[in-house]
Amino acid sequence: MAEPALESLIESLRRLPGVGQKSAQRMAFHLLQHDREGARRMAQSLLGAVDNVRHCERCHTFTEAPVCRTCLDDTRDKRLLCVVETPADQAAMERTGSYRGLYFVLMGHLSPLDGIGARDIGLQQLLDRAADGTVDEVIVATNFTAEGEATAHVLAETLKARDLRVTRLARGVPIGSELEYVDLGTIAHALVDRR
Amino acid sequence: MAEPALESLIESLRRLPGVGQKSAQRMAFHLLQHDREGARRMAQSLLGAVDNVRHCERCHTFTEAPVCRTCLDDTRDKRLLCVVETPADQAAMERTGSYRGLYFVLMGHLSPLDGIGARDIGLQQLLDRAADGTVDEVIVATNFTAEGEATAHVLAETLKARDLRVTRLARGVPIGSELEYVDLGTIAHALVDRR
Repeated sequence: MAEPALESLIESLRRLPGVGQKSAQRMAFHLLQHDREGARRMAQSLLGAVDNVRHCERCHTFTEAPVCRTCLDDTRDKRLLCVVETPADQAAMERTGSYRGLYFVLMGHLSPLDGIGARDIGLQQLLDRAADGTVDEVIVATNFTAEGEATAHVLAETLKARDLRVTRLARGVPIGSELEYVDLGTIAHALVDRR
Repeated sequence: MAEPALESLIESLRRLPGVGQKSAQRMAFHLLQHDREGARRMAQSLLGAVDNVRHCERCHTFTEAPVCRTCLDDTRDKRLLCVVETPADQAAMERTGSYRGLYFVLMGHLSPLDGIGARDIGLQQLLDRAADGTVDEVIVATNFTAEGEATAHVLAETLKARDLRVTRLARGVPIGSELEYVDLGTIAHALVDRR
C-alpha cells in the first residue's frame, strides 16, 4: 500500500497481544471507515493511561493513586493476604464476594525461560509486606498452570522459611461439571484432597 | 476497579472489532505492564492515521494523497477496472501478481438490513468512473458471500444497463483441495462453469 500513516497504524495495532497482521488490518480499516471518533478517543485513553496509571505501593496492582482503594479500605481484613498473578485475577476473586482480605499482585509469574525472575514479580516486596506484623495468612492464588504452580511453590517455600502461614486455593472438580468430562489430573487431585 | 484512566482505556479497546471485555483487559494490562512506549506510539499512529488518511478521489481506497499511487501508476492497464469490497481484498488481488488493471474499492457491500445502500458503496462514483471512456471491462471481485453476491448482482445489472462489459471472478474448486472435502455448492458451480 505504501501509505505510511496507515502502515504505522497497522504496525502499532499488531503489538497488541493476540493481534496478527490480518486482525490489525481489519481493526485499522474499521476505525478509519466507521469510527474515527473512537480512534481519537482511543489515542487519548492510551496517553491518559500511560501517564496516570502506576503500581500501588502496597499491593502492586494498577492504580492512579499512590495506594489503591482496596489497600486503603478500612473494612478489609488485614490479617489475610491473597497473592494473585494479575489485576484480572484479583477482579475475579473480588467478583466471588467471598474474600474480604487484602491482595498482593505479582503482575506475572516466574518464567525463567522468558527471563522473568523473582525481582520481576516483586518477591522481596511481597516478603516485606507479608512480614509487616499484620498478616496472619498468605493465600497463594496463582493460576493452576505449570508457571503458576512453579511460582506458588517458590512463594510458599520462601514465605514458610520466614515462619508465615501459607495456604493455596483448593484444587478439585469445578462446580457444575460432570465427572465423565473432567480431566484425570483434576479428579486425582480432588480424590487426594477429599474432605 | 474504579480507576478511570484504566477503565477508559479498556472501554476504548473494546470498540475494536473482535475484541471483548476480557481481550480488552488483557490488552490494556499488557500495554501498561510491558509496552508503555508501544502504547504511546499507538496513540500517535491513531491520530496520524485519523488526520491524514482519506479516500482516493478515483478508486475510493485509503490514501494519504488526493489520488492513490495505484491510480497514478502509468504502467497500469486503464481498460480494466476491478471492483473489490475492501483495501484488504485489493491487497490480496495485488499479491497474486496477475492483475495489472485499476481498481474501485466499495469500502463495504450492500446490506439493506444494516442500512448500507448504494450511496454508501459509492455506486454513482463507480458508474461515473466506469463510463469515463477508458474502461473496457469491469471485473466484479466482491466476496463470494451472500452480501458480496447480492452486491455483485446489483453492480452487474446497473453496469450492463449502461452498455459496459461486466465479468465476475470464476467460482470453482480451490487449488490444492480434495473434492471429498469441498462443499457441494462449490462443486456444483465448478461443474456448471467447467471448461
